[in-house]
Amino acid sequence: MENMNIGHHISRQFNEELEDVRNQVLIMGGLVEQQVIDAVKSLVEGDSRLAQEVIENDRKVNGLEVAIDEECTQILARRQPAASDLRLVIAVIKTITDLERIGDQAEKIARMGLHLNEMERPKGQYYEVRSLGERVAKMLHQTLDSFARMDVDAAIKVSQQDDIIDHEYDGILRKMVTFMMEDPRSIKRSLDVIWSVRALERVGDHSQNICEYVIYLVKGKDIRHTEYMRKAVKD
Amino acid sequence: MENMNIGHHISRQFNEELEDVRNQVLIMGGLVEQQVIDAVKSLVEGDSRLAQEVIENDRKVNGLEVAIDEECTQILARRQPAASDLRLVIAVIKTITDLERIGDQAEKIARMGLHLNEMERPKGQYYEVRSLGERVAKMLHQTLDSFARMDVDAAIKVSQQDDIIDHEYDGILRKMVTFMMEDPRSIKRSLDVIWSVRALERVGDHSQNICEYVIYLVKGKDIRHTEYMRKAVKD
Repeated sequence: MENMNIGHHISRQFNEELEDVRNQVLIMGGLVEQQVIDAVKSLVEGDSRLAQEVIENDRKVNGLEVAIDEECTQILARRQPAASDLRLVIAVIKTITDLERIGDQAEKIARMGLHLNEMERPKGQYYEVRSLGERVAKMLHQTLDSFARMDVDAAIKVSQQDDIIDHEYDGILRKMVTFMMEDPRSIKRSLDVIWSVRALERVGDHSQNICEYVIYLVKGKDIRHTEYMRKAVKD
Repeated sequence: MENMNIGHHISRQFNEELEDVRNQVLIMGGLVEQQVIDAVKSLVEGDSRLAQEVIENDRKVNGLEVAIDEECTQILARRQPAASDLRLVIAVIKTITDLERIGDQAEKIARMGLHLNEMERPKGQYYEVRSLGERVAKMLHQTLDSFARMDVDAAIKVSQQDDIIDHEYDGILRKMVTFMMEDPRSIKRSLDVIWSVRALERVGDHSQNICEYVIYLVKGKDIRHTEYMRKAVKD
């Protein structure tokens, strides 16, 4: 396992700042992960109150992004970090953008949940959303773990899960189209389900992006767009 | 009109580096804009060769992102910029991420075009895609203009176009659902059209993000997530 030691600086204050910014990212990551879990739960269980909570909590996610971004800019300006410290700050700036967008996807799923609550529930009880949601939440959790431990091997392994998610998403899509063809009255509901699983699929893409920043951070090599990291077009 | 003067540094070399990185962003922006235009054209006109070109050109977009990103990291490490120079470099790092994702959307539209070419053409000749495509390409062009001139007023004005795009997108979506209900055999084709206009709508979101970076860059104030900039959930 390769990892990174960020604990050796002449200035203890600087050390603390870097440690603080990392911790803030993990706090933001934890909140975003909970948002995804709650959004899926609100949709699957038809819990409109929980959906409303998710929608309101998105402000907290946005607030954390702005605060961490500001902290990173301050560190760059005051400390003028070099080498691995500089890479850490850049990786954080990028990571929080993806976390914020995962938050947006969670909010979108919660809104779909509210919308679906106005319609008749299908026999399958949205089990596709539940199943993909569990897989995606697990990937996001492992992504944040690899960030917390700066573990490149874990990040590579986790990022490969995105293929499985894309595959599962394609399968659900095909199934929903079949439903729509068989029963045109289900089109509106099916489209909401499609938007929801698509939002989950994008959470997978954003998690993959974060894994790539971890690898960049530790290895200092830009591996985006290389064949082994990204076989499909991300969105 | 507020704008920014980045031409006053003690080191001429540093000036040239900053100017170079800005020019590179504009080159990347021009390429991405052409990709969007070509992707829409390939879909609307059923031009599979053009679609293939768009798909292949996405490598160039990705290559530019990696190169500019690397240049920014070098500048941060070597020059340790402060104040507006630092904001420029951070804004560039963020801008190229959005440009790269606009490129991904163009590639996706081209792939939809290839897919649609295998099906019967609808009476409307995909005029929804053409219409929204023109609007989105214009917004992207004006976004890059506001970046080139560091023009905050223009950036605010351009970013507000995103509401119109979202509105047009919603209208197309409702229409496609009606089509699908009326003629279930059109579901597959309609879904491809929906993915394409959705990709265009996201190009609008990314353009809006870039406008916000221009404002941040000139004003030094983080206006993301404020009410006047973002009324709806983006992407």
